[in-house]
Amino acid sequence: MSRPLSAAILAVGSEMLTPSRVDTNSLYVTQVLNGLGIGVAYKAVVGDDRDELAAQIRHALGRVPILVLTGGLGPTDDDLTREVVAEVLGRSLLEQAELVETIRARFATRGLPMPDVNRRQAMVPEGATVLDNPNGSAPGLLIEHDGALIALLPGPPREMRPMLDGAVRTRLVAMAGSTRLLRRVMRVAGRTESRVEERVQPVYRAWLDATPRIETTILAAPGLIELHLTTQVDDEAAGWEALARAVAEIDGVLGGDVVSTNDVTLEAVVGQMLRQRGWRIALAESCTGGLVTSRLTDVPGSSAYVDRSFVVYSNAAKTDMLGVPAEMIARHGAVSQEVARAMAEGALARAGVDMAIAITGIAGPDGGSDEKPVGTVWIAVATNQPPRTQAAVCRFLGGREFVKMFSALTALDLARRHILDLPWDVDWIRR
Amino acid sequence: MSRPLSAAILAVGSEMLTPSRVDTNSLYVTQVLNGLGIGVAYKAVVGDDRDELAAQIRHALGRVPILVLTGGLGPTDDDLTREVVAEVLGRSLLEQAELVETIRARFATRGLPMPDVNRRQAMVPEGATVLDNPNGSAPGLLIEHDGALIALLPGPPREMRPMLDGAVRTRLVAMAGSTRLLRRVMRVAGRTESRVEERVQPVYRAWLDATPRIETTILAAPGLIELHLTTQVDDEAAGWEALARAVAEIDGVLGGDVVSTNDVTLEAVVGQMLRQRGWRIALAESCTGGLVTSRLTDVPGSSAYVDRSFVVYSNAAKTDMLGVPAEMIARHGAVSQEVARAMAEGALARAGVDMAIAITGIAGPDGGSDEKPVGTVWIAVATNQPPRTQAAVCRFLGGREFVKMFSALTALDLARRHILDLPWDVDWIRR
Repeated sequence: MSRPLSAAILAVGSEMLTPSRVDTNSLYVTQVLNGLGIGVAYKAVVGDDRDELAAQIRHALGRVPILVLTGGLGPTDDDLTREVVAEVLGRSLLEQAELVETIRARFATRGLPMPDVNRRQAMVPEGATVLDNPNGSAPGLLIEHDGALIALLPGPPREMRPMLDGAVRTRLVAMAGSTRLLRRVMRVAGRTESRVEERVQPVYRAWLDATPRIETTILAAPGLIELHLTTQVDDEAAGWEALARAVAEIDGVLGGDVVSTNDVTLEAVVGQMLRQRGWRIALAESCTGGLVTSRLTDVPGSSAYVDRSFVVYSNAAKTDMLGVPAEMIARHGAVSQEVARAMAEGALARAGVDMAIAITGIAGPDGGSDEKPVGTVWIAVATNQPPRTQAAVCRFLGGREFVKMFSALTALDLARRHILDLPWDVDWIRR
Repeated sequence: MSRPLSAAILAVGSEMLTPSRVDTNSLYVTQVLNGLGIGVAYKAVVGDDRDELAAQIRHALGRVPILVLTGGLGPTDDDLTREVVAEVLGRSLLEQAELVETIRARFATRGLPMPDVNRRQAMVPEGATVLDNPNGSAPGLLIEHDGALIALLPGPPREMRPMLDGAVRTRLVAMAGSTRLLRRVMRVAGRTESRVEERVQPVYRAWLDATPRIETTILAAPGLIELHLTTQVDDEAAGWEALARAVAEIDGVLGGDVVSTNDVTLEAVVGQMLRQRGWRIALAESCTGGLVTSRLTDVPGSSAYVDRSFVVYSNAAKTDMLGVPAEMIARHGAVSQEVARAMAEGALARAGVDMAIAITGIAGPDGGSDEKPVGTVWIAVATNQPPRTQAAVCRFLGGREFVKMFSALTALDLARRHILDLPWDVDWIRR
């Protein structure tokens, strides 16, 4: 196997160093690079600052043979990418007369004169290839320098993407040779990150020395863990086969905790199960406030199996909408096994569906007690063929939105386990 | 004005170099740094790769006196931040016995044994200060080295933020001196970004030459626009006063489209209005699937005014739960003015509340027609003192989740306008 190439991505623009903006161009660039088997060694965002930009370009060229820059090609004083790249590479910057005319013509089609500042966009470092921009005035630039490829692309995505998909990709294909980067994503529910790591580490460790080598990354979000298995190969079919074997091995170790092995979300997996059985579902949500139903209905086509949801935030709503006896709430509290079960069974009966999920808990920050602290959440699942209700209490540590999110994912996972007749032995259930 | 300090932010984790993940921690870190007058020179994302991480740390320490690292403090083999920082600084890494006990105790509160891998999290570079983590097992670390401050924070936001707001901030305040970067955030609803820009640009242009200089950034999200007004000053009181005058000027130009001038979310603003009036609200959601109610209940204390929500995904549910006549649905379709009004009025009456919001639309990708294409959404708002119902149809262009999000924000904004008796002349309503 040829040694895999790697690249750095540099987004240029002070606005992307503010607290409210993220660089999303790099995601698209990563996708294109990965598709060609080129890894991303790192990515960075730098402001419209000459020194900082020059330092970043030097750092990148010292580490990787491919550098993709986005942004900083506009016509204003802030737009420094052209100049700084030329300076770092020791190339002079020359105005290309025909490029001035192209830019002028672009303005003319909109009936406008070309502002004088736009002449800057016709400045080209010596030896660079100019990339046409059908969607804007800033041309892109491609430079080969000491075996490295440096692409300068405009910041607006609709200007950047066609250049990347066109001339830049062509050049990258030539550099990349036959190596491809392949990825499988598995989702795992009900376990803490360290529990998953403990179980899968002995398995994936061996793959690091295998041929093809497979790398495994574990990503934790509240209630759901992702395992990313990647391999860089020349033979794509053999690579997918190796990944399939690896996925099967992990699946064997984690068993019922595996939600999906093909990047499908938990809500979509539950949806597929309902659809396969021809079942319809209703929900009864208190502390999650509709979040579980919203997640379920994020899946296209979910109207085939989602019937309705009773968001019973007040106690009166629990009684009116689901028939939970007021005296039950008074005696056991709204957050109790009895009420959770009554909510699930009430939803099942009143909606006339095949399955119901109920959630009642304390999302906080107020409303907790010593006996039932913030984060205490009862989840019940009921089905009617044969009639069967299960309930469990979880304790989630965290803020309000975290408790809601964690409760929603756990409710969907417990519904999945209920359907598959798997034991509810997940890590957050208290016994 | 003293010369402002600057910092670098480094997010560690291979998952953030994939095409589907962005580093959002750096946004919060930037906000805290900017609040202290500390600029961000650049930020970078690096994978779980020893060499690349070491190179990034060296680069940062060569350029800035403050380096904030997030991620890579977990218990697994991938988690390299502790080790690599110690190596670059030439400090040894020692296991702290009492830290092992703290981590063990944390697992014990959940009735779990500490997995052996978690011992790694008790490794501390010589001379580092350990930062408590009440929300997870990974302690943070703070190191002073040759006049530079290096903070190692966990990746999960709810673990990272308290450390940053606590011990790290205290140390930064001491370094920062007197310059402060002040910010006011305004939220604007019902208008496209270019409409807002057109109206406010003549106003904010003048502030660029004023003393203190105020910079304005416009950030657009589906259905809601944020205006960020910032100024860097030594005299904090004068800075806040200037910002207050600027906010008032924008408020004068945009009028009723301004949702808040103090960074309060739309759902919290609607909640405040309900609370002030002693009103309770119910919702009737179809295409949004519970999302509006979930947003409303993200606000702490919302149980004071959110009573219940009818998520009537199927037509049968609309009839059973809200009394929408089946023949009305058959004649006009579930996505119609008649049904939206009947849903709002049904929710109002059945819940016995003061206000109701109803949403029925086509989120896609299927279900559209020539007459009612995907993205067609009817929204109705009803109040009962005096009895009054308003309804309007919007057309949102985008994917399923985008249509849901845009519908949810618009429904909340129309409820706000209904309460304030403002005309429903928002940009997405079709007439």
